[in-house]
Amino acid sequence: MTGTGFELMTTDGLARRGRVTTAHGSFETPAFMPVGTAATVKAMTPEWVAETGAECILGNTYHLMLRPGSERIARLGGLHEFMKWPGPILTDSGGFQVMSLAGLRKMGEDGVRFRSHIDGSYHDLTPESSMKIQDDLDADITMAFDECTPFPCDKETAAKSMRLSMRWAKRSKDAFRERDGYGLFGIVQGSVHEDLRDESIRALTDIGFDGYAIGGLAVGEGQEEMLRVLGFTAPKLPDDRPRYLMGVGKPDDLVAAVALGVDMFDCVLPTRSGRTDQAFTRRGTVNMRNARHKEDTRPLDPDCSCYTCKSHSRAYIHHLVMAKEILGMILLTRHNLHYYQELMTGMRAAIEAGTFAGFQSDFTARYTGGDIPLS
Amino acid sequence: MTGTGFELMTTDGLARRGRVTTAHGSFETPAFMPVGTAATVKAMTPEWVAETGAECILGNTYHLMLRPGSERIARLGGLHEFMKWPGPILTDSGGFQVMSLAGLRKMGEDGVRFRSHIDGSYHDLTPESSMKIQDDLDADITMAFDECTPFPCDKETAAKSMRLSMRWAKRSKDAFRERDGYGLFGIVQGSVHEDLRDESIRALTDIGFDGYAIGGLAVGEGQEEMLRVLGFTAPKLPDDRPRYLMGVGKPDDLVAAVALGVDMFDCVLPTRSGRTDQAFTRRGTVNMRNARHKEDTRPLDPDCSCYTCKSHSRAYIHHLVMAKEILGMILLTRHNLHYYQELMTGMRAAIEAGTFAGFQSDFTARYTGGDIPLS
Repeated sequence: MTGTGFELMTTDGLARRGRVTTAHGSFETPAFMPVGTAATVKAMTPEWVAETGAECILGNTYHLMLRPGSERIARLGGLHEFMKWPGPILTDSGGFQVMSLAGLRKMGEDGVRFRSHIDGSYHDLTPESSMKIQDDLDADITMAFDECTPFPCDKETAAKSMRLSMRWAKRSKDAFRERDGYGLFGIVQGSVHEDLRDESIRALTDIGFDGYAIGGLAVGEGQEEMLRVLGFTAPKLPDDRPRYLMGVGKPDDLVAAVALGVDMFDCVLPTRSGRTDQAFTRRGTVNMRNARHKEDTRPLDPDCSCYTCKSHSRAYIHHLVMAKEILGMILLTRHNLHYYQELMTGMRAAIEAGTFAGFQSDFTARYTGGDIPLS
Repeated sequence: MTGTGFELMTTDGLARRGRVTTAHGSFETPAFMPVGTAATVKAMTPEWVAETGAECILGNTYHLMLRPGSERIARLGGLHEFMKWPGPILTDSGGFQVMSLAGLRKMGEDGVRFRSHIDGSYHDLTPESSMKIQDDLDADITMAFDECTPFPCDKETAAKSMRLSMRWAKRSKDAFRERDGYGLFGIVQGSVHEDLRDESIRALTDIGFDGYAIGGLAVGEGQEEMLRVLGFTAPKLPDDRPRYLMGVGKPDDLVAAVALGVDMFDCVLPTRSGRTDQAFTRRGTVNMRNARHKEDTRPLDPDCSCYTCKSHSRAYIHHLVMAKEILGMILLTRHNLHYYQELMTGMRAAIEAGTFAGFQSDFTARYTGGDIPLS
């Protein structure tokens, strides 16, 4: 084959159970990809990431092109070899992070010129250079270079931005080096407007990609609006290609989006929360700084089988986060990633069993999203 | 038995090969104890600490009495249960850290009153309260409460300070709750003066302890002076009790002190260095921020069998420390602790084989202490 493979194994309502095949192995979908921004999933060893059940991770083109540099990573054997992650890696195009993190100097038809947040140096990012960088990184899944439409914005701006992204998508496709097991995904834009999303889908499917991402969501529009847009976008994407909702999200976002037919997710939430004293449990999020944990000898979640819950008490984790100890971040990150993967495993099993609707209503009844004590 | 046990298995010159037995198992000497200040060896899981070969770790009374509190730790089952370290634990008396870290308010015959560096609250530390706190922590080895004589100081001040410590040593012994497998160590003071050290040794041996520590060294006197004092102190300590050099040190300090008959060490150097970008190798210390590592695919030390060296390259570790990633601290700490334990293992084997002098000269020839490239 050329590109990545996708097998749609079964469906349950709109929810899909599949498998993506890449040059570095396959991963089951619906899938959650932990974010490994700077060639490390923060506070984790690669072995721990794998132990949580994660099969594919994400790398950030913007961070890696600046440090240590994509050509350096290529000389060192690619990102898998560099960070010792043997499994599939997806890289973003750099566009979203350039526009949100860097000192943006100039943006035009060709691409963007920006200043590094590390040393102030100037860099260009275009569809062609983004493809080259992601190729240097040896990404199994390369994302097309696009502009993330700001939110909110008027419809004319959204349309202009989306059409620029579609021209960039074509240039990305033309510049992408095709190899067996390496895929290129297009990104649907169009803000909250159904006709613009439709136009974007048509443009991308005319070009033809190995997968389709839904961009421009989770940028402040709120969950209800996000699901409304997803509802008229995801089901129109080609059945025989994976669908990826970028940068999402909270556990309840994932469940709702899978119900609308999304196959892939990435988000910094489980790792960032692990470094800011928040734990995910099947009942909701728990703030580990809360004094009520001081002498609580129970694990974070008595039903969780992760290392943290099998080994350590809430009292100990509370102490570690109060003392700002690195081990506190390690333990919470490891638990949170395990929680996310277990959630995906549960959804995959429910789709296989044809019981996804029940899974979703059970989840919703139990998951308040708030900081409540376990019974 | 009451107290901890000590078996002196063999000697080679002044160097000693032994085994200390406690309520939570035994450890081989000469031993290096990683420092677990706030109920965690920083950036490590307990399993990793054990994997480096460490058998006994140190906890800090000063930090633990303030947070989470020693009575809380007692209610939670003691320090072993709290931090999930099933092996032997030694705690310091709190005296040294109170005098160096806290806002000291009053110091007298009875003890010290100080302000917490965390919340400014007032606390008293006396021989009696230090014994109670270490008992609450469930320390296998409790240290007598002493004053660490400042350096430099005139001989009269050193004598006065040492004699106060000896009175406190007697009060510590009287207040210590004797239990099988739990020991109390006295601490020799007397600054750099042989007659004062002799007087201190006589005072402590008259009281009788399970082990003898040498305090007041590694406080700025320099290695040469430290070894001179050790030379007239360590060999005079009772043969049938372990000898512990507190807060030491660099790898070459350890080798030289073992040659003078020291059995136990603790130091923050391997862990602190791991969080400040320094790696120990058998050739010397290496600054991982140095640009020469950028594309070096070798491990830190090709002959090292630790996780870090088996898994990751210098180039990757350099990248992680430049990006201030937690994984960089994890990898370096793990390697450094492994290096220290391997050094102790080598010394123990050399003493057993009667080849310690050769071990020491080989070590000295190879170990420059500087940041040199591996060949």
